[in-house]
Amino acid sequence: MAPDGPDVPFASVALVGLGIMGGSLARALAALGRPPRVKGWAPDPSDRFAAWDAGVLAEVAEGEREVVSGADLVVLAAPLDATCALVESIGPYLAPEAIVTDVASLKAPVLRSAVQGGLGGRWVGSHPMCGSARSGFSHSRADLFRGATVYLTAEDDRGAPSERVSLFWKALGAQPVPMEAAAHDALMTRVSHLPQLGANALAEVLRTRGVPPEALGPGGRDMTRLALSSPEVWEDILRHAPAELATHLRALADEVAELAELVATGDVDGLTAKMERTRGWRGGPK
Amino acid sequence: MAPDGPDVPFASVALVGLGIMGGSLARALAALGRPPRVKGWAPDPSDRFAAWDAGVLAEVAEGEREVVSGADLVVLAAPLDATCALVESIGPYLAPEAIVTDVASLKAPVLRSAVQGGLGGRWVGSHPMCGSARSGFSHSRADLFRGATVYLTAEDDRGAPSERVSLFWKALGAQPVPMEAAAHDALMTRVSHLPQLGANALAEVLRTRGVPPEALGPGGRDMTRLALSSPEVWEDILRHAPAELATHLRALADEVAELAELVATGDVDGLTAKMERTRGWRGGPK
Repeated sequence: MAPDGPDVPFASVALVGLGIMGGSLARALAALGRPPRVKGWAPDPSDRFAAWDAGVLAEVAEGEREVVSGADLVVLAAPLDATCALVESIGPYLAPEAIVTDVASLKAPVLRSAVQGGLGGRWVGSHPMCGSARSGFSHSRADLFRGATVYLTAEDDRGAPSERVSLFWKALGAQPVPMEAAAHDALMTRVSHLPQLGANALAEVLRTRGVPPEALGPGGRDMTRLALSSPEVWEDILRHAPAELATHLRALADEVAELAELVATGDVDGLTAKMERTRGWRGGPK
Repeated sequence: MAPDGPDVPFASVALVGLGIMGGSLARALAALGRPPRVKGWAPDPSDRFAAWDAGVLAEVAEGEREVVSGADLVVLAAPLDATCALVESIGPYLAPEAIVTDVASLKAPVLRSAVQGGLGGRWVGSHPMCGSARSGFSHSRADLFRGATVYLTAEDDRGAPSERVSLFWKALGAQPVPMEAAAHDALMTRVSHLPQLGANALAEVLRTRGVPPEALGPGGRDMTRLALSSPEVWEDILRHAPAELATHLRALADEVAELAELVATGDVDGLTAKMERTRGWRGGPK
């Protein structure tokens, strides 16, 4: 990965969860020039076996308490509700100087749990803007975090823990960006939750019209890839998503209905004017 | 590409248009073990120069009449309206046994023009289900057609011209599938036009909310990539699209509005039930 890059500022790392995120962390850390000692655990035995077989862990622990004990950095790589439950409960099992981070895709709920669990300044939330609709260790990759933005949220985002977690992500090739929890979550309703449900809506229309996914071209495949996302992961996110998600979805419904009217009335100029504007926004010629 | 694969059943090929489709054809043909003689022309001088510089043409012609003259196969790789105008007008300039195909993404309008232009059985329409939102020779690739479905439409789709055009695409690694023009165009409203306008609608909502495209993760990038599509290309398609496109768009608007209601009322079970169904449709675990 980056054998001559900077070290992570932790001698030992515990990974709680070895799916696509935890598994990719295990691979990325193992590929460093001077890797930390990495222990892992996952509730799914097949992820534990696969991670051990891949040779990217120094130790597979026997449970979540065992895996966090003694680690300098604990990374919770679990779905959102499980992450919240962990930050509320693991405090007593942590080493005295341990720092805790997580990779859940909403930060306000985890911040609340961290305060409730007494972690306070020892918790620094992370949200790597990378991954895949597919889940599990079998989809993990050593370069998953390379070039990805990682939002960092903490009670005190200028403290030493934030600084060290930031260096951790930089060592993996990611770009840490501090952001306040509520602002982060509001941004996610736009850039993540809205596209996700848009993909589900399009897939549902195609499904009910009997279109086989094999009939899609590259554009249609792009537009429905997120339909592969795990409902188990999204259940928690949708339960905790900020209320503005409904507002954004209504705006999308209105916009699609407006395009339907332009099509129905043959207003091709109106349609291409919209296409010009959105092409300019997305980075094409204005 | 496939130097030991089958030959194309034409000794000479004329490419009218050298953008992403015509340019990729030039590259794919040049990569064959025994390539045909390929002449090309494009209205855009920069595409002509780039194709010549790439060394994938035996000759750059001086105009559309010159390029088609003497060729065994003429491939029209132009936007839809330009394609229709060409099939109506090039008849007098063709070699006596020449076959004409095109790569426009609607087939009924081209079929009408082919009949009007007196090409009749010498025209076999093609629609390769591949490409990119980006256009121009600079985005062409020798492997663009590899593995892609290519729909074939003709007045007589069992005649020798259909058979030879089918072998042409097979030699480039594509999978020809015969389909009647109206059925093809109706399928496109679902698998191509609907996702295209869905991407524009989502991009417009994000644009008006001040989201920079750099803030998108991989899923959001997938969902807005088609916003890069050329309005110049889509103008013709939207003008000729079957009327059911408006119906499909209204169904999408209704589906998004329904998801908004589920979000607003906190019906997470309703949302995940939809996600389960669309994941199963798209090819994930049921």
